[in-house]
Amino acid sequence: MGGDYGPHCIVPACISFLAEHPSPQLVLVGHAPLLEELTARLPAADRQRLHIHHASEVIAMDERPSQALRGKPDSSMRIALEMVRDGTAQACVSAGNTGALMALSRYLLKTLPGIDRPAMVTAVPTETGSCHLLDLGANVDCSAEHLYQFAVMGAVAAEALGKEWPRVALLNVGTEDIKGNQQVKLAANLLQKAKGLNYIGYIEGDGLYRGLADVVVCDGFVGNILLKSSEGLAAMIASRLETLFASSLPARAVGLVAMPLLRRLRADLTPAQHNGASFLGLQGIVVKSHGSAGEDGFKSALRRALVEVRENLPQRLHGRLEHLL
Amino acid sequence: MGGDYGPHCIVPACISFLAEHPSPQLVLVGHAPLLEELTARLPAADRQRLHIHHASEVIAMDERPSQALRGKPDSSMRIALEMVRDGTAQACVSAGNTGALMALSRYLLKTLPGIDRPAMVTAVPTETGSCHLLDLGANVDCSAEHLYQFAVMGAVAAEALGKEWPRVALLNVGTEDIKGNQQVKLAANLLQKAKGLNYIGYIEGDGLYRGLADVVVCDGFVGNILLKSSEGLAAMIASRLETLFASSLPARAVGLVAMPLLRRLRADLTPAQHNGASFLGLQGIVVKSHGSAGEDGFKSALRRALVEVRENLPQRLHGRLEHLL
Repeated sequence: MGGDYGPHCIVPACISFLAEHPSPQLVLVGHAPLLEELTARLPAADRQRLHIHHASEVIAMDERPSQALRGKPDSSMRIALEMVRDGTAQACVSAGNTGALMALSRYLLKTLPGIDRPAMVTAVPTETGSCHLLDLGANVDCSAEHLYQFAVMGAVAAEALGKEWPRVALLNVGTEDIKGNQQVKLAANLLQKAKGLNYIGYIEGDGLYRGLADVVVCDGFVGNILLKSSEGLAAMIASRLETLFASSLPARAVGLVAMPLLRRLRADLTPAQHNGASFLGLQGIVVKSHGSAGEDGFKSALRRALVEVRENLPQRLHGRLEHLL
Repeated sequence: MGGDYGPHCIVPACISFLAEHPSPQLVLVGHAPLLEELTARLPAADRQRLHIHHASEVIAMDERPSQALRGKPDSSMRIALEMVRDGTAQACVSAGNTGALMALSRYLLKTLPGIDRPAMVTAVPTETGSCHLLDLGANVDCSAEHLYQFAVMGAVAAEALGKEWPRVALLNVGTEDIKGNQQVKLAANLLQKAKGLNYIGYIEGDGLYRGLADVVVCDGFVGNILLKSSEGLAAMIASRLETLFASSLPARAVGLVAMPLLRRLRADLTPAQHNGASFLGLQGIVVKSHGSAGEDGFKSALRRALVEVRENLPQRLHGRLEHLL
């Protein structure tokens, strides 16, 4: 029921996802009459894999996490997470209120042993491929131990998603030892001593986009600012390019050819819309789709959840954490 | 003597700056024989406005600020700053070691009354023009009071550079009151009470590029990450565009028209290279040119220093700080 477009975008994304993937089943949790209406024209064969579960309440996009926790026992978000907790569902995908989703996830699913706080991670495109960036905003104040836990979780997630011996770096204002704030320096000490982790040291903001690491670790304040400012900059460049290509006759001709290329580039560069962000460190799989994601964006979030289910990511994390923490 | 290219880039930038601006005089501080050689072919008329001051030492790009302070009494950076302190020069422009330049500036020029720490500020391009972002890395750990002082200094600098009643915002992970870390929330309290300041509240990373504020305030850790990741992303987009336009025959034809436009865009989007960053809050004018800046970049830093001299920025700041702090 969440996100900027709600079920009118999410339901078509689900139908298209089912058509692409023959085995998974989806449960739509929300206002049943609306969901029935939106799925009415679905062929009977697909219908068997698309279930509707009624929820009488919705958590608003601007609601405080504390309200979401205490009030609304029948919210769509809470019921979906309860299904994951009870094993009725293997993953929850939501485009709703991020803070509420994190608070409810922690309360209902609990963190893995050794993890104080779950982190949000997404894949950011780089010059050489992509890099897993965490935390993205779940934790605005972090200790060195939290950053260390994020590094471990990020490395295990990157491995599960196909990257061997991923290079793990700490985001910092320079690459020399003396650079950084207290938490970052202490986290570097912890990571240097860690065995079974490919820690490569500090990385700067430009190094991330140059592809110098596979996992980049920072606190949620910094990660959120980095991700959102990148989205803003990519959007600004795209709009400037459109203006440039409309500015003269030869440029306009050029624009006709260039526009589809630019649109593809723009889609590549809005990682949160494109991929969805995972909550790592919970005893269950939760993927947050960007609130402004369209149909393709939400489908990407579903795909991400499917990969994490197949790789059994929480179980894998649990096994590795016992060695690393 | 500093930066990636040293005097071989800086001297031509100075010569070109003098040709564009008939009144200012420049003093080149550094290894005199080299500087004499690089300026040998200068016409006599220009030579009267270009002076050479020998310095026997150079602060290396990787030297610790503490070493730069204690050792090397005859470094080019120190002598240039002493000239500003003594009134022999009205501003110092350097492409050298940022940490050393900040430490020496603080030690030799002192901060203005009421200012604990100087901040680094630069103009970042936005969808509607540009915005002054500070701090950029001089202060990695900041209290709410420091953020408040940055806001005041940023507003006065924006006014001096021609922006009336500039909109001042605090960079945060959301725009609601409950969002943010402790320092940001406390700084917001201070700013809400401030009179004579157009404080508009929180701004997110994408809001900055959408042009929603004229002055954006954050601690130096966040500002440095934002600026460098933006540079990295802009460079990555530029290189992807070049690849796109080389990928097919019609795209190649397009590329011939598009490339000059893209290069202009790229230059617009590397603000630190383009504009130089000012140190605000000192009893004197210091502008830091990006280490990787070329001739045009260094000339922009000189231009920025000239504007600050003409506007008498430190004096202006001093007058306003007495009212606002």
